[in-house]
Amino acid sequence: MAIALVPGSFDPVTYGHLDIIRRTKGLFQDVRVVVARNSSKSSLFTTEERVEMLGKLCAEMDRVVVDSFDGLLVDYARQHGATAIVKGLRFVSDFEYELQRALANHRLNSELETVFLPTGLQYSDLSSSIVKEIARHGGAVEGLVPEIVQQRLRAKFALGNE
Amino acid sequence: MAIALVPGSFDPVTYGHLDIIRRTKGLFQDVRVVVARNSSKSSLFTTEERVEMLGKLCAEMDRVVVDSFDGLLVDYARQHGATAIVKGLRFVSDFEYELQRALANHRLNSELETVFLPTGLQYSDLSSSIVKEIARHGGAVEGLVPEIVQQRLRAKFALGNE
Amino acid sequence: MAIALVPGSFDPVTYGHLDIIRRTKGLFQDVRVVVARNSSKSSLFTTEERVEMLGKLCAEMDRVVVDSFDGLLVDYARQHGATAIVKGLRFVSDFEYELQRALANHRLNSELETVFLPTGLQYSDLSSSIVKEIARHGGAVEGLVPEIVQQRLRAKFALGNE
Amino acid sequence: MAIALVPGSFDPVTYGHLDIIRRTKGLFQDVRVVVARNSSKSSLFTTEERVEMLGKLCAEMDRVVVDSFDGLLVDYARQHGATAIVKGLRFVSDFEYELQRALANHRLNSELETVFLPTGLQYSDLSSSIVKEIARHGGAVEGLVPEIVQQRLRAKFALGNE
Amino acid sequence: MAIALVPGSFDPVTYGHLDIIRRTKGLFQDVRVVVARNSSKSSLFTTEERVEMLGKLCAEMDRVVVDSFDGLLVDYARQHGATAIVKGLRFVSDFEYELQRALANHRLNSELETVFLPTGLQYSDLSSSIVKEIARHGGAVEGLVPEIVQQRLRAKFALGNE
Amino acid sequence: MAIALVPGSFDPVTYGHLDIIRRTKGLFQDVRVVVARNSSKSSLFTTEERVEMLGKLCAEMDRVVVDSFDGLLVDYARQHGATAIVKGLRFVSDFEYELQRALANHRLNSELETVFLPTGLQYSDLSSSIVKEIARHGGAVEGLVPEIVQQRLRAKFALGNE
Repeated sequence: MAIALVPGSFDPVTYGHLDIIRRTKGLFQDVRVVVARNSSKSSLFTTEERVEMLGKLCAEMDRVVVDSFDGLLVDYARQHGATAIVKGLRFVSDFEYELQRALANHRLNSELETVFLPTGLQYSDLSSSIVKEIARHGGAVEGLVPEIVQQRLRAKFALGNE
Repeated sequence: MAIALVPGSFDPVTYGHLDIIRRTKGLFQDVRVVVARNSSKSSLFTTEERVEMLGKLCAEMDRVVVDSFDGLLVDYARQHGATAIVKGLRFVSDFEYELQRALANHRLNSELETVFLPTGLQYSDLSSSIVKEIARHGGAVEGLVPEIVQQRLRAKFALGNE
Repeated sequence: MAIALVPGSFDPVTYGHLDIIRRTKGLFQDVRVVVARNSSKSSLFTTEERVEMLGKLCAEMDRVVVDSFDGLLVDYARQHGATAIVKGLRFVSDFEYELQRALANHRLNSELETVFLPTGLQYSDLSSSIVKEIARHGGAVEGLVPEIVQQRLRAKFALGNE
Repeated sequence: MAIALVPGSFDPVTYGHLDIIRRTKGLFQDVRVVVARNSSKSSLFTTEERVEMLGKLCAEMDRVVVDSFDGLLVDYARQHGATAIVKGLRFVSDFEYELQRALANHRLNSELETVFLPTGLQYSDLSSSIVKEIARHGGAVEGLVPEIVQQRLRAKFALGNE
Repeated sequence: MAIALVPGSFDPVTYGHLDIIRRTKGLFQDVRVVVARNSSKSSLFTTEERVEMLGKLCAEMDRVVVDSFDGLLVDYARQHGATAIVKGLRFVSDFEYELQRALANHRLNSELETVFLPTGLQYSDLSSSIVKEIARHGGAVEGLVPEIVQQRLRAKFALGNE
Repeated sequence: MAIALVPGSFDPVTYGHLDIIRRTKGLFQDVRVVVARNSSKSSLFTTEERVEMLGKLCAEMDRVVVDSFDGLLVDYARQHGATAIVKGLRFVSDFEYELQRALANHRLNSELETVFLPTGLQYSDLSSSIVKEIARHGGAVEGLVPEIVQQRLRAKFALGNE
């Protein structure tokens, strides 16, 4: 019955994100992967592109839905009956930022739990910004992101389309 | 179906621990609160006393079982079909220690997830050692531990029984 | 005789800030709450608005003056005979940033002490940015900021005035 | 009127401690340097030796009293009318430990503030344990501790008196 | 034979940077100080100005070459036969950021080591941004940056040339 | 010409330690792996056992010598003409502890550099204490320590020889 949200920018999605999604699926009945429509932060991929890539990558995972949201995550959680937010933690700096948000979200909705999963060892150096920086300079990103994301990154940077 | 373990020393159990147990119950089907029989670390209460106090405090919570374990937590998890370990996080130093253990446990059993819950704001200064230090000097521990634990602390220290 | 500065952006002031101001008043003879005129950082409220809100909220506190400053805080401190800067600390990341600034200020003026106060438990998730994010999406900010700030936030966001 | 406590083990006192005492004196009317009588922790110097060394080193500082305490620091503070506890902070690990204690002390006595001072740059590698380790192996501790402490350390270790 | 890179923004170079360069020279045969041409980040000095200042300051150091680079540092390292990247560490937040980059660079080139040197005590509050902030407001930056950098800072800010 | 020390307890040596030794060998001419004879800390293996295991494991590595030391590491470094101490860093808590020691050692001998290497991703959960805890309860430690160490651990714990 329990529904968990896996929110993020996913700009673009990495193997680290997919690992968290897969493990969330092992813990919760239903999973909603939700892309934040963050108008102020300039992203490489549009929200639609990010949702589409995630959708393809999660297509074969039953019980996983991909969506986007605008506004407060606690409101989105209420609308979809979610009882947990799942975040991967790699570093102490992640932890402090996410802890602060978790406490603030708990204040807005005391029924909503934030659950932290430690990022797997092999992914702990991996972030969307590092992937973009490598791709921008023509570096190899296999092992960091799935094939479909590699293609999109090549397309973006071939066009000089930052 | 999912069974979660809440392991700890619980020497003694505090309101912070009870908050984590209650929230774990909201996320998982069944909860096993497990007291570590740690022979090397000198504890104030015996394992039996700690199990008994926890048992009384969790008596009215359905789906929560109190137990103790010796040996490796991953072995205990396997024996009881648990798929998750739940730990409360208060501070960065907690986080690093628990992250290291979570990664090591994942290595020993890749099916077993460690899940971190942020400790509630009102409990983040609370630890069993601070409770013991206050009680040892006759300070007031209401608001930190339940009535039954207050009584046991008074009994221990009245007897000079450290 | 001792005069303490409580500097900050206060964009907008929260209950956490007011708690630090009140406690600084308990430790020092006179308190100057000073709003940084930071031209490069885009703020939601103008310096004048921030000074006015703080002024109203500190009106009933004797020995507390509200002001703004431009330039180096050490120069402002010298002009007003202040011997201490007071900063609230919530997190490790606050601590490192503020420690670095405290050491740099001490280098510029070895008579000026920076004093850190731990933020009260109930405010440790509270920051001006989280308040703005909630208010921007129409979330409830009672319990986070005083009534006058709630009104101003509603007015700002009703006008789409970001 | 304000009285501040500077508590610690001072086993032995270092130049870093003396810097904190001197700066506390600049911020508060009266200062009580208090040595914790910690029976459980094995110390190199007895409480009496630590009080005596501190007493000599603070003899020429007016408004500074040296004492020892047993029990809870909040009780000692109440007995002596102290309104602040002052602690030096060097590192993140200091910060988290002291933050937890400050919050716990605030819970026991909401009138008592804990105030953190950043340790001066030149003392941030300095701790009593490092001093003892160096002295134990016959290393030079000038620049770390005053002359009187150097003598006592030499006397202790010459006698093999650990 | 071993060649080490000391990469950075150096906007502008400080005494802290020069200390790291000097110590790297003590550990490695040849040193290449490399200024990152970071088009996206707005810098105070142009890449050319930063290279020129560094060039003058390293002129008398044999075995030290100053250069700039664009693209991925691992590619630059490969082209110049470098086997190590050297970074100074001051704070925990430095450490986590640099650790992540070091792991990512190791993934791209497993022959390339990242080596961390602890920043000297007297420089640990020193950063290019703090230097710029002080200089912008006419504060004194002797003791933080060499004479040639002081002149350039005065020239920049006299011209209102931010 | 440069000689580096890799000091540690090595109780017992893990694959993480061997990775640091191998990488130190890539950066420095000669490497001395030195086991700390720490009489106060109770170790599982004697200094002689630890030196012997390390000796076997480093036998095929030219330019690597295994030794033990008592006293101050700076004195040992001086006697053997070493100019660098190499330490692996996994976590923030490692970093702060090692940073403090590095600064203290630099104070005792300003010619001696401490160099930090980030522990490889696949070893960052690995510590001698976790290895001992697993082995003590009969858990599998392949993948964590070499065959020879596995044998010794089995022998120790079979004999109940803690």
